[in-house]
Amino acid sequence: MASVMFTDCSSSTAAAALLLPSSRYRVRHSVLHSLWSMPLQFAPVKPILLRTTATISHASASPSIVTADLERAFSTNTSLYSTAMAAETSAKIIDGKSIAKQIRDEITVEISRMKDTVGVVPGLAVILVGDRKDSATYVRNKKKACESVGINSYEVHLPEDSTEQEVLTHISGFNDDPSVHGILVQLPLPSHMNEQNILNSVCIEKDVDGFHPLNIGRLAMRGREPLFVSCTPKGCIELLHRYGVDIKGRRAVVIGRSNIVGTPAALLLQREDATVSVVHSRTTNPEEITRQADIIIAAVGQANMVRGSWIKPGAVVIDVGINPVEDAKSAKGYCLVGDVCYEEACKIASAITPVPGGVGPMTIAMLLSNTLTSAKRMHNYK
Amino acid sequence: MASVMFTDCSSSTAAAALLLPSSRYRVRHSVLHSLWSMPLQFAPVKPILLRTTATISHASASPSIVTADLERAFSTNTSLYSTAMAAETSAKIIDGKSIAKQIRDEITVEISRMKDTVGVVPGLAVILVGDRKDSATYVRNKKKACESVGINSYEVHLPEDSTEQEVLTHISGFNDDPSVHGILVQLPLPSHMNEQNILNSVCIEKDVDGFHPLNIGRLAMRGREPLFVSCTPKGCIELLHRYGVDIKGRRAVVIGRSNIVGTPAALLLQREDATVSVVHSRTTNPEEITRQADIIIAAVGQANMVRGSWIKPGAVVIDVGINPVEDAKSAKGYCLVGDVCYEEACKIASAITPVPGGVGPMTIAMLLSNTLTSAKRMHNYK
Repeated sequence: MASVMFTDCSSSTAAAALLLPSSRYRVRHSVLHSLWSMPLQFAPVKPILLRTTATISHASASPSIVTADLERAFSTNTSLYSTAMAAETSAKIIDGKSIAKQIRDEITVEISRMKDTVGVVPGLAVILVGDRKDSATYVRNKKKACESVGINSYEVHLPEDSTEQEVLTHISGFNDDPSVHGILVQLPLPSHMNEQNILNSVCIEKDVDGFHPLNIGRLAMRGREPLFVSCTPKGCIELLHRYGVDIKGRRAVVIGRSNIVGTPAALLLQREDATVSVVHSRTTNPEEITRQADIIIAAVGQANMVRGSWIKPGAVVIDVGINPVEDAKSAKGYCLVGDVCYEEACKIASAITPVPGGVGPMTIAMLLSNTLTSAKRMHNYK
Repeated sequence: MASVMFTDCSSSTAAAALLLPSSRYRVRHSVLHSLWSMPLQFAPVKPILLRTTATISHASASPSIVTADLERAFSTNTSLYSTAMAAETSAKIIDGKSIAKQIRDEITVEISRMKDTVGVVPGLAVILVGDRKDSATYVRNKKKACESVGINSYEVHLPEDSTEQEVLTHISGFNDDPSVHGILVQLPLPSHMNEQNILNSVCIEKDVDGFHPLNIGRLAMRGREPLFVSCTPKGCIELLHRYGVDIKGRRAVVIGRSNIVGTPAALLLQREDATVSVVHSRTTNPEEITRQADIIIAAVGQANMVRGSWIKPGAVVIDVGINPVEDAKSAKGYCLVGDVCYEEACKIASAITPVPGGVGPMTIAMLLSNTLTSAKRMHNYK
């Protein structure tokens, strides 16, 4: 069962100090998993209290299509979303849910056009090992998302005690299968398997997760192009683009340096000519550095770590974190908050992503986008 | 013949503005080449004037072993070195020449031990295409450096009008040759060849230049290890280590984001837990950001760009640049200066690399080190 992290914006704990214990400071393999596997990190304090004196227009639409992993939790408790979107705020809300819907609609049209003109339907293969309920849910949601836009999905479900070789054999099969354009290995894998070996065996042309070091290397290098960019950081940048946020020449701070979010986000921002600083668990003055940023991407997995005082007035805040905090009012006993203290930040930032409903829905939209891109590339279809 | 860049520390030109024209702001493929191929960049002004009222102890030793590429120019005019080392200064001089000599001595001992115990001699293959005199000199110097430590060197010299396929065939041969542990393709290649294709064809196990995107990707990722790190940035970090400079938790600014110096230097510093910001041609306030750094690595290829006012008192400065500036007193008509205005910086920094004699000698020492590492790895020799 889920362990719940207890923290809130009103705590007087020096937030900067929270960066220090490195063992606690990291984004789990996937922010998706952090929901369910995050250990108890702080002494219980009161849950975040969001004021509901004003209502943002985006919040008026109740969630309808809820298939992304990051949306699963909030689909079971839609009031969370409304609460997050209804805080008293001066910042523009970067509505990831709405943008993701728009992107999925665009993908649906493209897939239909491709099928009609060249008879190709993109295919995504997902390999699931073991019986983790959360993983099974994520895989199910990915399949649903594929179906909703017209992507064929293929699933292999192997028992927990499978060998690494069995997984590699299935990956090899999908690598060779021309109807598969993207391969996902659902993580975490059982502990007896070498995750690195398994991820490296996905051929780079089908690495729609963008986790392969060759893709990361190309992302880091000028004049090179990665075949795929990891879905969450790609979604962050897409939000900035779609909201018309200037990146070139701006100061950007990325908080967190994980392989799947922080590092590729920093590399992406630099490719767009931002001046990027990466703040991490060993940074001695994260607040001071973050306060210099025009654009903040927080990807730490630490509830409400980035306080209002960390934010330069007018900055744009992209909050990747999705952290459960105790909430007695919720049937589940918890609600979800970001790495940024939303109630403080929304009064200082010029624009901010809510949690949930910000970056979360973009992650799966980018997965679908990467799968379509892969199919187009393989079939040389423009 | 060489085009010479004219600039000096005494110019009142706003140095920050020099960062702006992107076409002018980049490290050429190799700082080595920038010596000879750099176009005229600024209106002529007086050359840098270094005061010689005090003499640093390191400067008393005249250069003895001068084989590295970056040392070639100064080997033809040893007075440059003494001049650079003799400026009035409060900073400790980070003596790359002396450290490089020490490393080469260590490599010589290791190679001898390896040969005696397992009969293996490391081998470095260099492919040179065309008749550029500077390239021929670099290749000759690399061969000499190999000989001096006991590495076998292999050279292929192809005519300018060779085909890309011919180069690829030779690389393939070296990839398969067990006596070759490192492969270098001397750049620049003739314009009719695709540099990316050719560099990518060097197998990653022999990519002693560390330019392969898979090596860059592994460098960027936590929990992954590159097989090789590019020689110049590796040399920068080695200097910091050997001079006992703390990196963990320090603010570091890397000026420049080239694939071969700036980007890998930033990634290396982050791996060592520095908080890194990358300043580049689109940065609007490079001076302000640089002034926050405890450690500065300047790799821009812009003579004297980093002024004293950019440097926080007590910072450590690693100057990768090596730029020719007009010098009527020199027989060559120019002298060499770094990206940092040495005469100003040495009064503010706590430690600084001279140019020449700082990073330059480290580059080839790291190439020899990478070749030895490769041979050890291939033969599982500890």
